[in-house]
Order: sequence, then structure tokens, then C-alpha cells
Amino acid sequence: MSKGRLEAFSDGVLAVIITIMVLEMKSPHGTSLESLKPVLPVWLTYLLSFVYIGIYWNNHHHLLHATQRVNGATLWANLHLLFWLSLVPFTTAWMGENHFASWPVAVYGIVLLFAGVAYFILTRALINLHGQGSTLAASIGRDKKGKISIAIYAAAIPFALAKPWIAGVCYVVVAIMWLVPDPRIEKRVAESREGPH
Amino acid sequence: MSKGRLEAFSDGVLAVIITIMVLEMKSPHGTSLESLKPVLPVWLTYLLSFVYIGIYWNNHHHLLHATQRVNGATLWANLHLLFWLSLVPFTTAWMGENHFASWPVAVYGIVLLFAGVAYFILTRALINLHGQGSTLAASIGRDKKGKISIAIYAAAIPFALAKPWIAGVCYVVVAIMWLVPDPRIEKRVAESREGPH
Amino acid sequence: MSKGRLEAFSDGVLAVIITIMVLEMKSPHGTSLESLKPVLPVWLTYLLSFVYIGIYWNNHHHLLHATQRVNGATLWANLHLLFWLSLVPFTTAWMGENHFASWPVAVYGIVLLFAGVAYFILTRALINLHGQGSTLAASIGRDKKGKISIAIYAAAIPFALAKPWIAGVCYVVVAIMWLVPDPRIEKRVAESREGPH
Amino acid sequence: MSKGRLEAFSDGVLAVIITIMVLEMKSPHGTSLESLKPVLPVWLTYLLSFVYIGIYWNNHHHLLHATQRVNGATLWANLHLLFWLSLVPFTTAWMGENHFASWPVAVYGIVLLFAGVAYFILTRALINLHGQGSTLAASIGRDKKGKISIAIYAAAIPFALAKPWIAGVCYVVVAIMWLVPDPRIEKRVAESREGPH
Repeated sequence: MSKGRLEAFSDGVLAVIITIMVLEMKSPHGTSLESLKPVLPVWLTYLLSFVYIGIYWNNHHHLLHATQRVNGATLWANLHLLFWLSLVPFTTAWMGENHFASWPVAVYGIVLLFAGVAYFILTRALINLHGQGSTLAASIGRDKKGKISIAIYAAAIPFALAKPWIAGVCYVVVAIMWLVPDPRIEKRVAESREGPH
Repeated sequence: MSKGRLEAFSDGVLAVIITIMVLEMKSPHGTSLESLKPVLPVWLTYLLSFVYIGIYWNNHHHLLHATQRVNGATLWANLHLLFWLSLVPFTTAWMGENHFASWPVAVYGIVLLFAGVAYFILTRALINLHGQGSTLAASIGRDKKGKISIAIYAAAIPFALAKPWIAGVCYVVVAIMWLVPDPRIEKRVAESREGPH
Repeated sequence: MSKGRLEAFSDGVLAVIITIMVLEMKSPHGTSLESLKPVLPVWLTYLLSFVYIGIYWNNHHHLLHATQRVNGATLWANLHLLFWLSLVPFTTAWMGENHFASWPVAVYGIVLLFAGVAYFILTRALINLHGQGSTLAASIGRDKKGKISIAIYAAAIPFALAKPWIAGVCYVVVAIMWLVPDPRIEKRVAESREGPH
Repeated sequence: MSKGRLEAFSDGVLAVIITIMVLEMKSPHGTSLESLKPVLPVWLTYLLSFVYIGIYWNNHHHLLHATQRVNGATLWANLHLLFWLSLVPFTTAWMGENHFASWPVAVYGIVLLFAGVAYFILTRALINLHGQGSTLAASIGRDKKGKISIAIYAAAIPFALAKPWIAGVCYVVVAIMWLVPDPRIEKRVAESREGPH
């Protein structure tokens, strides 16, 4: 089965997610610079969520680039990932509008945690399909970065209830960790020359 | 006529449908865990509708993968299917916000029923184009699963007016029935090797 | 210049237009069948606009299928068409919510008129690029249907102010006229075998 | 790494941005022609922003057409550009609803300025990847138009606070300057025949 439509559909969903979030930023009623102030925390949350969706799109791009084919299980693993990411606009709005209160910050982390787990499941489903000896499996390796991210989310959630700003720092740290593009898959694909295109 | 744009447009519409539904989940005013409670039924309906749109995308992907070409009739059969699916966000919001009251649950089922019929019409239009002896016709076969789904929807609608939860169980049962990926088309395509790609 | 991205972008915009219209159908507050009544005119307008956007997508698909290449002028002619079509959700909501009052019906027709003119300009820009002797020029021919549509819209607008239902009938008649897929381009492309794919 | 998905994702985001802006144009409550009056400034701002997003799509199309490949840095440079463009619906709504008041007009210009800078960064990232001697580098040249645009935005922002209409004229002038399609890249690509497709 070809991977073209899986990529196209994922691109569509991620493009909609990344842009509808900004719809939550209602234009303020006043026209002074001060009237933008209540929008600021919403804007900061939007920036963070934009970076997260950007990271997922980027990693998804790398992952599927190293992929030869997909099957029913990977289609559903991919939809499962998109489901959790589709909840990001909701948690972004709740967190931004409530100035980083405890529960909104915790729920934001829970959705990130499930999205991280869903991405991990997707990589496993793709490795199962391509085999342990494939370029894909080699390029993902032990996926240290993915596991660390999940651990940080899991640690941040209880922190959110006590000191929300610590959880916020955790989310920013994970985002920065991923902003650096992953050289593993790119390198392996370049080496093996087995990749498509 | 090539099928590429039909797939691209369908992917776009389904991607927008699946993500705008979540816009109905307004972020609650409070910041406590309890303030999420009224969102819960909306969230559950969103989950169900997400799975349904995911199933349709999945089946659409399989169906068009086994397809060689499209014509004017199939373009309109496809738009007809997208029309009914585009009403899912509306019925999802109405059902979720009203805690599964009778009429919203019934109307949710009516839209599912028409979407099911529209998918059936699309398969017939494609078989007409490719011929009864085609891989596509063989892979769809008698389409037992599709016919059972339509029968269950039709049975669920009167139940919705008396006991909405029975209708709800019906919708969940059909969703589970389809979650298992359909091996028929995949198998036939693999056998025949006539498929594109 | 390749036409792939022009198609992809147009598909994206049309997919968003066709699905955001349904966002205007706010789920009613009650749960009875009667509470759906005020939604009915909105639903009917949505159905009409869905068919119109579907027709434009369909014709756009046929038109670009017969096209070999695009240039700067056609990119802007295409964006000009998308601009008028992007106003359809606005006029759909205004007409549907006001039960087909005079001015909303007239403005609906004005946007259809400009979209029709924009489509005409796009066909001219493409014919200029491909030459009068091209398959494309031959397949479009004198474009009788397009000119009749524009004439009907222009006639419907003054009618809308006096008897809105006559304008409504005009819009439905044009839609039905186009629902029949255009055999001209399909036939010519099939004959010439100069088309891509 | 292939550029196909970068184009597809950008097309998706730009298609959503260009169409969700129109969602801000709430249908008026009255049904008279006068009730459209308060919508007029929103409509004019929408028209301006539609043209701007159209220009960016157009230039993006030309730029990536002359591109052979992308890497991690260009993926993020592209996401950075999309981030600023995704704020355009917000600034469009704020400016349109407040009849071109000082701060909304200034903030509109600030977002345009950052988008212009982000586009400049994207061109530099692509030139770094392809080399100073590449077709791409030659076709972009000294990018006089891009630099003039950024200078005009920067000059318009302080004007917005004193005389918003001067800033408005600046934005319109830049838009007109870009509406003329850029012959440089098209010409160079045609000459070199090294371009893909």
C-alpha cells in the first residue's frame, strides 16, 4: 500500500490544527496597546503549541521519508497520533485563557504525553512492518529522545498541580530538545541509499 | 481521468471535518478538574465521530487504491458522500451538548445512515466504471459489512427515540466492526498485481 | 511552470470553504425535532452552496486536466476565482439566517456572478497561454453554458429585491444545469490523447 | 530530502489561513443594504490580507520551484514563515473591526514585517543549501524587492501611530508592487533547464 495518501491526509490534519489554534485568539475589543495584554498568555501558548505541532510534522516527515510502505495497523497508529494532536487547540485555549492555572497546565501535559506515546506506537508499528534489520529500524535505534520526552511529560504533570511554572519549563525544554533536527534518520537514509525518491 | 485530485480533495475535506469538530469543544470557564465535566460527553462524542471519519478515510483509501480511473458520475458520488460526512460535526455538537438526548442521537444516526448509503452508491459507481470482472468488483464482493452497517443504523434510529443509549451502543458496535481493517481489498490487490503503484 | 501546486492549493482552499460553511449551522439549544426548524433554511442554503462549490471543483478539475502548464497570469486568475468563492460561506450564512430576505439573496447572487466572471477570466488566461489551436481551447469552445450562467445571475439579482424566491429558483436552475458533467472537455481530451497522465 | 511534503504542508496551511479569515466576517443581523456597512472595513481588510497571502503563496511557489532539495534548517525556516503568516487572520480581524485605528494598523504592519524577514531568512537558508553558484541563488539575486518591502513596513509602523491611513497606503503599495509576478526566477529557471519537472 502506498504511503502518499497517509502523508497527504496527515499534512492536511496538521495544517488545520496549526492554523485553527490561532482562531482562539479573539481580537481584543479595545484598540490600545494595553488591550493586547490579555491576549499575551494566549499568544505565548499558541507559540508553544505551534512549535510542538511543527516538531511533530517535522519528525513525521523524517519518519515517513524512511518508510517504504504502510498497512492497516500503521494507518490506525497514525490516526491515533492525529487524534491526540487534534486535542492540542483545546488544551492550548484552556491553558492560555486561564494564565497557566494548575489543571489546564496539567491537562496540556497529559495530551502531550499521550501524543508522545502515540508517536512511539507509530514507530513500533512501522518497524514491525519493515523488520528489525531495516533502514528505518536502524535509523530510529533506541529512540532515546522520544523516551526522555515521555518521561519529562510524566514528571511535569504532578508538578503542574503544585507549581505550574515548573511544568511550563518542562514543556519548553522538551520543545527545544526537539527543535534541533534529528540527524539520525537523515544520516542513515543518506548512507543506505535504499530510500525512495 | 486521473484519480489524484479526487483523493487530494477528499483528503482535504476529511482533514478539515475531523479537526473542526474539536472546535465545538469550547474550553471551560473554570480551571478546576470539575469544570471539565460538562466537556466529557462532548469529548466522548468527538472520539466516536473521529473514529467514524477515520474509518471512512481508511475505507476510502482502500477503495481508491484498487481503482484505476474515475469519471463524472464517481466525482459526484464522492461529493455526495462528503456532503453527508460534512454534517457530522453539526450532529456531533448537538448530541454531545445535549447529553445524548433522543432526537440528537436519532439525527446523528440518520446522518450516519445517509453516509453509509452514499458510500454504497460510490462503490456501485466505481464498479460500473471498472466492470463486474474487475479487481475492484471482486475485492468489494457482496459488501456484507457495508450492508450490515446500514441495517444497524436503520434499526438504531427508532431506538434512539425510546432508549437513546441502545442507539449509542449500536453506533459503537458498527465503529468497532470497521476498526478491524478490511483484508478483502488488500488481499485481492496483492493477488492480482494489477493495482497501480 | 508545473500545475501540481496550483491544483493542490485550489483543492485545499475549496476543501476548507466547503466544510467551514457547515460551522455556521450552530447546533440548536433545544433537543426536540422542532428545535431543528430554524436550522432548516440554513441547511437548505448550505446544500445549495455545497453543490455550487462542488460544481466549481468539478469544472476546475476538468479545466486543469486539459491544461499543460500555468504562468503568473493564470496563478492570479485562479486566486481571483478563489477570492469570490471564499465569500460564499459569508453570503450563505447571511441568506440562510434571514430566511431568504431580499438583500441577502441579491448579495448571494452578486458573489455567484463575480465567481462566474472570474472562472471565465481563468479560462481566457489559460487559452491565451495554450493558444487558440490547443486541445484546451477546442474543448472549452464558445463556453455557452458559462455565458448563460452569468446572464441568469445578472437577471436574478434585480429579481431578488422584488421577489427573492424567483432569484432562488434561478440559482437552483443554474446549479442543476451544471450538475450534468460537461462532456466536451472529457471527449476532446480522450480524442486528442495529448493530455497528461 | 524531497521537497514534496514541504510544499503540500505549506499549501495546506496557506489554504486554511486564506479561508479562515473570512470566518471573521460575521453575517450582519439586519437584512438591509445598510446592515452591510459595518462589514465593509472588515471586507476591505480581508481583501488586502487575501492578496498578501496570495502573494506569499505565489512567491513560495516560484521559490520552491527553483529549489532542488530541502533540509532541517529550511523546514524550520519555512515553519517560521508560516507562523507569522498564521497571525494575519488575527491582525486582519483586529484592524477591520476597529476601522483602521492606530495600534491595530501598527500591529498589522509588525506581523507583515516579521513575515517579510522570515521569507528573507528562508531564501538565505535555501541559498546556503544550494550554493552561491546555483540557479536558485542567481534567480533571487540581490532580492531588491524583498528588501524594499521590509523597509516600507518598518517605515509604516511609526506612521500608523500618527496617521494610520499613511501606513494603510504603504501596505497597499507593497501589495501592488508584488502583484506583478516576479520574472527573475521564471526566466532563470527557463534558461538553465536544470529545474525539476
